[in-house]
Parts: sequence; C-alpha cells; structure tokens
Amino acid sequence: MTSSSSWVPGVTPDTPFSLANIPFGIISTKDDPTPRPAVAIGSHALDLEALNGESSLGEIVPELKGHENVFQQTTLNAFAALGRPVHQQVRKALRDLLTAGSSHAAKLQENEELKQKALIPLGQVKMHMPMAIGDYTDFYAGYHHAFAVGSMFRGPAAALQPNYTHLPVGYHGRASSIVVSGTPVRRPWGQILLDPTAEPKQPTTAPCRRLDFELELGCFISTPNEQGTPVGIGEAEDHIFGYVLLNDWSARDIQSWEYVPLGPFNSKNFASTISPWVVLADALEPFRAKGIENKTPVQDYMKEAKAETAIDISLEVDITTPEGDTTTITRTSAKQLMWSFPQMIAHHTLGGCNMRTGDMLGSGTISGTEPGERGSLLELSEGGKKDVMLYGMDMRRFLKDGDTVTIRGVCGGNGEKVGFGECTGRIYSAVQR
Amino acid sequence: MTSSSSWVPGVTPDTPFSLANIPFGIISTKDDPTPRPAVAIGSHALDLEALNGESSLGEIVPELKGHENVFQQTTLNAFAALGRPVHQQVRKALRDLLTAGSSHAAKLQENEELKQKALIPLGQVKMHMPMAIGDYTDFYAGYHHAFAVGSMFRGPAAALQPNYTHLPVGYHGRASSIVVSGTPVRRPWGQILLDPTAEPKQPTTAPCRRLDFELELGCFISTPNEQGTPVGIGEAEDHIFGYVLLNDWSARDIQSWEYVPLGPFNSKNFASTISPWVVLADALEPFRAKGIENKTPVQDYMKEAKAETAIDISLEVDITTPEGDTTTITRTSAKQLMWSFPQMIAHHTLGGCNMRTGDMLGSGTISGTEPGERGSLLELSEGGKKDVMLYGMDMRRFLKDGDTVTIRGVCGGNGEKVGFGECTGRIYSAVQR
Repeated sequence: MTSSSSWVPGVTPDTPFSLANIPFGIISTKDDPTPRPAVAIGSHALDLEALNGESSLGEIVPELKGHENVFQQTTLNAFAALGRPVHQQVRKALRDLLTAGSSHAAKLQENEELKQKALIPLGQVKMHMPMAIGDYTDFYAGYHHAFAVGSMFRGPAAALQPNYTHLPVGYHGRASSIVVSGTPVRRPWGQILLDPTAEPKQPTTAPCRRLDFELELGCFISTPNEQGTPVGIGEAEDHIFGYVLLNDWSARDIQSWEYVPLGPFNSKNFASTISPWVVLADALEPFRAKGIENKTPVQDYMKEAKAETAIDISLEVDITTPEGDTTTITRTSAKQLMWSFPQMIAHHTLGGCNMRTGDMLGSGTISGTEPGERGSLLELSEGGKKDVMLYGMDMRRFLKDGDTVTIRGVCGGNGEKVGFGECTGRIYSAVQR
Repeated sequence: MTSSSSWVPGVTPDTPFSLANIPFGIISTKDDPTPRPAVAIGSHALDLEALNGESSLGEIVPELKGHENVFQQTTLNAFAALGRPVHQQVRKALRDLLTAGSSHAAKLQENEELKQKALIPLGQVKMHMPMAIGDYTDFYAGYHHAFAVGSMFRGPAAALQPNYTHLPVGYHGRASSIVVSGTPVRRPWGQILLDPTAEPKQPTTAPCRRLDFELELGCFISTPNEQGTPVGIGEAEDHIFGYVLLNDWSARDIQSWEYVPLGPFNSKNFASTISPWVVLADALEPFRAKGIENKTPVQDYMKEAKAETAIDISLEVDITTPEGDTTTITRTSAKQLMWSFPQMIAHHTLGGCNMRTGDMLGSGTISGTEPGERGSLLELSEGGKKDVMLYGMDMRRFLKDGDTVTIRGVCGGNGEKVGFGECTGRIYSAVQR
C-alpha cells in the first residue's frame, strides 16, 4: 500500500484505481481501434503502447528489455507469460511514473505531447477481453454456496459429497463464451422440465425461466507448466498473473435437468462475464486473510505454508431493473472460500494437466452465511420460493429480460483503494424460434 | 468413392490413404522443421505449402483464390474456416492432381523438381497437432458404453439418467492436454480411495492404479457460429470440418472419487490423444449408416431429415505390452452411437454457446454389445474384476507402465479405403514425488 499521491488529474480518494492498484487491461479508442494494453489510474487509462513507443519502458524496467513488444499485443498474454518478477517490476515502474514527485514522473508528467496521447479519459476507451483464454476451469470453493445449493438439488444430507473437504471440486467450463463486462447476455433456450415431479420425465424446449448470476472471482495463469509436471503448492503463487470479477451466468432449470452425471453444460456455457481490468496478484498481497476453515486435514500436496491464503475483497452485487432502479442485493467478501487458488492450481496439475498462459480459474460462487450475503438468486430466493425485494416496489426470484447485474469488488481504504471496476451484463430476450 | 488409381508410387490397395480419402494433417521434416499443411496419399505426404508455392492451388481451385495462405500456417484452422464448399473443391482438385491420367495430373507428375520437394515418404515426416483446439467437449453418445459404465458406478437401475435419451449428455473437457498420436502419456497421480467401502472415506494421494483408454471419434468444427445464435440441425453438417480417432485416457480410480457432483476432472485432463490426419466430412459421406435407435421422440431442434446419421467406421484397439506382444482387444464400429454429431452441435449451441473453428467434439466411448466390442478396459474387465487375456500369456485389467494403446479406424474396400492412420500412445511411469 502507498499513501503517496498521483500527479494525474482526477485521482480521487475513492477511486478503485489508486496508485496502490495499477491494474492492466486492453483498450481501444475511436482514433485507434486496435486493441492494446493499458493500465488504469483514477479516471484515466494509460496507453502502454503509446507510452512504450515514445519512452521505452525497457529503459526504466531492465527486466522488460527485449520484451517491450508485449505492449503491442491485442491481449495481455505475452506480458503475463513474462512471469511474476517482471510484473512486479513493471507495476512498480508505472506507479513511479504516476506518483507526484517521484524520480521518473517527469518523463511523462512534463511531456505534454506524450501525456496527450497516452493518458486517455476512461469514458473515451472501449474495454476488450484482457486475455485470450485457452481453458476455463470453474471450481466450487465457496463452501456456504455449495452447501446451500447442494441442499436444494439433493437435500441437506447429501448437499456436500464426501470428497468436498478433501479436494477442490471443479469442472471444465466453456472458454469461447467468456465475454468482457458490458457485453449483452442473451437468455438461453434449453431443455427444461416444466413439471419436475411428473413421471416419466418429459422435457420441453423453451427459454430459460430461472436465469441467475453467480458471484465469483476469476484468476489468470501467467507462466505455464509442462504436461506431465505438476505445480507444487510452494510454486503455485508464481503461476498467478492476477484476478478479475466473474459472473458465471447460470440457467437453473436447464442445469437441474442436464447436470447428472457429467456436470453443468448448456446451463453455463452460453455466457460468463468478467471485469475488464486484471488486478495483479501483488496488488492484492496486503489484503490476505484467512479463508473458511477446512477441518479435514488436507493431503500433503495442498498444504500451504501461509495461514492467510484467501483475499479479503469486499464484493457487492446490484440488480438494475429495466425501469432503471438499482438495488444492492448481495454484500460479502472473497475470503468466503474454503480452497485457495494455489490449492486449486496444485490440485488441477496433480495428474500432470498443463496450464497455459491465459487460462482462467473461477473460484465458485462466493456466499456468506447471512441472507444478504448470498452470491446467487438461487440462494437469495431460497430455490425460487421467496421474493427478493427490490427498490421501486419490484421483486425477483430470477432475472427478467432487461435486468442488469453488476458486480463490484474493492479492497483498502480511501486514497489507496484496490478495486476491479465493474463486471456488468444486461439480459436480452431469448432468440425467436 | 473412386476406382481410379494414383500415379504416385506405393499407393497399395490396402492403404488407408487412397484417392477416396485425401486427409489433411500438419507435417514437418528434418530439412524444414516448420509445421505446415499436407495431405496423405498412400505412403507419402503431399506438402501443400511446397505445392502451393510453386503451382498456386488457387489457379486450379477458384474458391481458394486469395486464400492460398491457409497452407502457410502451422495448423489447419485457417483452411477449416473457409467452409465446407471450399474443402470439397480443394479435396477434389488434389485428388485430380494425384489421379493417373487426369487433366491436372501433369502439373505435379511431370514436374520432377516439385515432386521431389512436395512428395515426402511418410517415414520422413513428423506429425503435429492438426488443429489449434479452442474448446473440447466430450459427449457420451455411446449408449452401450454409457449403460455398462453407469451400471458399474451407480448400479443398472440408475445406469442411465432420465435425461439420457432426451439430450446428448456431454461435458466440457480439457483442450490444453490434447496431444497428437505418438506423444508419451504419463501415468497421473491423483486422489484415490484405496478402500472405497470404508467410512468415513479417506483418500490417499497416489499414482493411478486403474488407468484406462476410451475409444472415441473426434469431430472438428469448421465455421463458427455467433454467440447467442444457435446452429439449426439442418445447418449443423456445414459446421463440420472432419474427424479423427480419439483416445480419451481415463483414470478410473481418480474418476470414481472426484466426479460427483460436477463430472470428471483430473481423471481425464492429464491427456487425450488424437490421430494426426483429419479425414474430411465428405470423405466419409459414402459410409453413412443408421446409429443406435433412440426410441424416445427427440425434441424438434434435434430432428434430422436423414435416417442414416452415423458413420460405419470399423474400429480396432490394440494393446502392445512392454515385451512387444500385440493383441487386438476390441473390434467395433463408429455407428454404435445414439446421437449424431449434427445433433450434438444443435444441442451444444441451443442456448447460444458459440463454437469456434478448431473446437473438438468427442463422441463418447464407442462400444458394441458383445464382449470383444467394448471400447474401454473398464468394460472389458467388467469393472476390473476379470482378466483380459493378451498374447504372450499376459493379461490386463488396466494399463501397465510401458503398455502402448493403438486405435485404428477404416472404411471401404481395397483400393478405395478411407482410413485414419493410427492413434497411439505409450504409458510412462508416474512422476517421482
């Protein structure tokens, strides 16, 4: 954390993009529609391609020398692949450059032409997918969510399988349909049991009636491991590039019919939304916290040296109705996870599975224990049985066409906030058939 | 099918790479280690980069004009993305070029320098992954396999879920660990219940003891669909590029402990092997056959106009022991599927999931009903309870270190065979920990 201030205009105390953050994303502008890397500072994006073209970041960051072309790419993958020590140095150098009175600040602050070109108001940039995602794995590490949803699908006695406390349960998700915040989400069609109790079971093909969000944290892989070579728990941190907010949209009626025995499929693969700025792992170090205690002794390959393996990010979910009324329906923390990302990586690679730069891991839905802390409508509405009250005399059990779901996440106090920006998506009506 | 003959030396009547086939792959050679597209003819590869560089395929195939750079790529994705009409024309033109006495044959046959450069004995080429695979989806359309394995995991009464005959059950697989035939496969470690009956359940971390193969067919997507826009059953065929043999290696002991409730994960993601030559959809048209009858009426979006929606490919699986003895343990047909690939595509995209060029669909394990027709050791050994007899007085329930599994697939009679070449992989011992 830092309490120094930036010379960039408009870096207010409440900005999620303080000097303590320096998150990376992919931007384009009207003048230059080619997507390119940038960092966010206050209400501006700093265009790294423009900056690097004029002042060579390699001169400030020796570790970057010879690799400056990572900022002439349409994704952050090449930068991520350079590894954590380089990310640390680059982030530090950029912070220096943006800090009032620092040794390097003049290089940008006093170069009016470069400033004009490289410092762009966020309102004028379009955000793109930050990474090319090879594989997406979704875990299920939110214990309170797993218990609550498991109870609904299978009853409380079988809510959690015997494996739940021994390994981070996860499944392979769909990479192609992950979209950046702001992308419209179309209500999916699917096979649905209109009467789940009738025998024999007879599905209907219809638009989803139980469309839901899932509040998750996404984690990007930086350096790959070779196929056949597991990542040890001690090295797993070094394979993490950074984090985004993740909304793993879910069609609950499609899910309950399709998911046995091979897991969720069409109920999840129509869309997942991520926030556009990748907050680097180092920016979140000061916010380490204990996660949910696992009373079961874990296998050696997942035993961690540190006690604080979760991250205390304050998370909120808003629903905005088609009429424009916004209600915050969930407030919780990313520390509500029973497995850490290093444990997920160690488990995922135990059998030799190779992770590639840009692969994304989802945490699983994050829920607290209280009614207002639940990370999905399925939980908030108790399985669709109870109305969730919204402003404007409105209510929801599941999402309506025209609803917008927005996830926000932030750590730290005023002047040194580390936040994610918004992860938002609006529901459009199902395709006409 | 064709009964004409090729002027290329060594195109024997029993070659799987007859004029009726013309499969596409990615090759490299000692002299030129850059991977590049080729087709197989008899015992030769025809280097398409070399051919196109000298004689411009675009002159012979008007549809290819302006797109000739698809043969200067390290994968077939760019060619696949051109769509089925172009694949048809290019395959036809190449067949012409290789057919004795055809109008275009002279262009290659009488150009000694080009022939020397472009026609390379298969023994001198290294095969690479034919496609860059974005997402891999594994279906479960082999009814006899699903029933047999379901019976072992859950008992015969619950072997097939009520959804099985209503939708092609599938799950998202791992794309990063798909390897080309010949790549060594390391025995995975995993969490295993040494005594599955003991309570409470206590896993051990150990190398897999029940390592298995799965005989499958893989299908590659050519043209993509937009997110939110389903592919109709009538257009699904046009989105298919071609097929490969697929061995979806499976760790049965890891699988039985981990797979509830979200499906297989580490039990499958350590490796999947594919054959290197992609047999185009058109080459398999003459071998259409009826699949396994589904007595349940299917939903409209999966109703097909044609009755013959499966492909009658003769499939065999060999096990070769470390001592070098080979036994064919399985003989069946790819028509033993209850769902067709067009149905899988229509279902996969029903909710709007976007498929990209190069995405791969697995059929699920293909098994017949008889003992010698089963596509996995789990079935052949009746859940690991019975020895499978091999040559050399040897026997197996599951795979040993040093075993090689080879899948072969071929259609058609002598002189006009359409085959896949081998899909082979050898098991190496687990990592030392």
